[in-house]
Amino acid sequence: MNKKRIGQRTVALAHPPSVLSYANIGGKVEKEGPLSAYFDELDEDSFFGEKTWEKAESAMQKRVLARALAQAGLKPKDLDYILAGDLLNQCIGSSFSLRDSGVPFYGLYGACSTMGESLSLAAMLIDGGFASKAAAMTSSHFCTAERQYRMPVPYGSQRTPTAQWTATAAGCTILSDEGPGPYITHVTCGKIVDKGVSDANNMGAAMAPAAYDTLSAFFRDTGTKPQDYGLIITGDLGELGHSIVRDFFAKDGIDLGTHFQDCGMLLYDREKQDMHAGGSGCGCSAAVLNGYLLSEMRRGKWKRIVFAPTGALLSPTSSFQGESIPSICHVVCISAE
Amino acid sequence: MNKKRIGQRTVALAHPPSVLSYANIGGKVEKEGPLSAYFDELDEDSFFGEKTWEKAESAMQKRVLARALAQAGLKPKDLDYILAGDLLNQCIGSSFSLRDSGVPFYGLYGACSTMGESLSLAAMLIDGGFASKAAAMTSSHFCTAERQYRMPVPYGSQRTPTAQWTATAAGCTILSDEGPGPYITHVTCGKIVDKGVSDANNMGAAMAPAAYDTLSAFFRDTGTKPQDYGLIITGDLGELGHSIVRDFFAKDGIDLGTHFQDCGMLLYDREKQDMHAGGSGCGCSAAVLNGYLLSEMRRGKWKRIVFAPTGALLSPTSSFQGESIPSICHVVCISAE
Repeated sequence: MNKKRIGQRTVALAHPPSVLSYANIGGKVEKEGPLSAYFDELDEDSFFGEKTWEKAESAMQKRVLARALAQAGLKPKDLDYILAGDLLNQCIGSSFSLRDSGVPFYGLYGACSTMGESLSLAAMLIDGGFASKAAAMTSSHFCTAERQYRMPVPYGSQRTPTAQWTATAAGCTILSDEGPGPYITHVTCGKIVDKGVSDANNMGAAMAPAAYDTLSAFFRDTGTKPQDYGLIITGDLGELGHSIVRDFFAKDGIDLGTHFQDCGMLLYDREKQDMHAGGSGCGCSAAVLNGYLLSEMRRGKWKRIVFAPTGALLSPTSSFQGESIPSICHVVCISAE
Repeated sequence: MNKKRIGQRTVALAHPPSVLSYANIGGKVEKEGPLSAYFDELDEDSFFGEKTWEKAESAMQKRVLARALAQAGLKPKDLDYILAGDLLNQCIGSSFSLRDSGVPFYGLYGACSTMGESLSLAAMLIDGGFASKAAAMTSSHFCTAERQYRMPVPYGSQRTPTAQWTATAAGCTILSDEGPGPYITHVTCGKIVDKGVSDANNMGAAMAPAAYDTLSAFFRDTGTKPQDYGLIITGDLGELGHSIVRDFFAKDGIDLGTHFQDCGMLLYDREKQDMHAGGSGCGCSAAVLNGYLLSEMRRGKWKRIVFAPTGALLSPTSSFQGESIPSICHVVCISAE
């Protein structure tokens, strides 16, 4: 019955769902970064007009959803599903953003892999005949993440060199059973990988084995190699995690080449902005995908890309209890044709 | 393309996936309750052999998954997907339980509706041809929930009459493209409903409008009425929420009758155990479904049931910020034939 699976873990979509529209939003730091021209909206107010940072994060999701809907000429009632999640405890970024939408909602938790998870499930729901249009969405906010995972922001704590900067950003993709493309052709679901890294300030190293695991499965299942794609891009491994994945593949005799990149290394200027290892957060890969990547695909820069966001499935409680960091990576193959 | 949808929000599965096996586990209080005979495992040690309550919750999920797999004669590698989530911040109950499983994993957050959400998505992934076997799983633990949502357990805080008792329990269903039944025939995805209730000690009242909304959509979309089902059972509305849903339907001229029940009202003895409004937590409806409900369906007690767990999508932070409680209900129709 699982006739759409190829190899062990990959799904080849029979009627690849199309990207109908997409939108992203960022904050002040994202505005100062090298991808600022690829944002639909940039707001220097870290509260996004709200009274708390958590409400600000919900406001970001509301705005990207409204913008993606408008770009496709759709109303909320035209969506069969929204699949969304975020980093906040109990995913309140998503649930509060959607409480007035009236759209059927499946809430997800995949940490920073959420954009990949939501796209995967939305694509399968459409390909399976359960929906004609579905939105995939996620967000993160530097201030909500800092106070939840690390220190109160006003402390001005010093950050370690391997630390990453949580993006204040959100992204939304609307998929449809027909449209101009790009198309979701394959998805490979991640499994949890935990190699014992327990330093919550070095999540790139914790997540790298998960990226290697799912990317390897994707190439094996599809019988393709990195050179068959214009771009292979992880979510937010940062400099260290990114180089670890490159090393893992090199040990297998596979050169990932210069077209292996990481959203977290593209979002900020590494010299001028000094984000240490790079950007992170659900919103990092979501904003890079729903701006730079999809826009440049439509302009013809890449024919096929492999989008592979990773998530660190820890919590402050698990770290306090001495646990290592379970990680996951979901792969989505996007093709212009 | 959405050819499997009937009405506005309901999916009619073309080849209804079968329940292949199921398992549940509970703690000391669940052992003292009226459904104790329907548990696969009951452990009086609230740590389930671990050193912290969070690790105990992961251990519960590990045990129910292992048991459900064993009952079906399966190994983890036979599962195409696991869909799981829980109430803990960043859903660590699920991610830590699964880190050694090696099974492709989609993490969910639906609060106490998670058993309905995971069954819905697992059923659609199978019916869509993306999987032949998938597990749906969730858990909750009284002690992890109390310290996260309310007060440190050793304080012994007094509870309000409308408060519910978070079940220490977990449940797992394994669905397959073929099997002896019962079968998942329909799923109706919830949308977020928030009528302004902000009392976190009265979640039944907050969630009741969501239950009414999705149940109404299910009956409307399928053209059926409550009398067409042997049992209509919500997740953990408790006494107050349950009576509110009954009242809502009565206003529409629909009598839900005595076969309208609530898992939270069945799990504990309301006189002897004094759980105030009833049981709650993801594990409440999961344990009742994967024990009492599925076992009695196989014994022929009910031909068709409507399983409708609800979730309150709040967080302590959202409550501190004065927010009301967004809620959701996912409906799953299960048929013996």
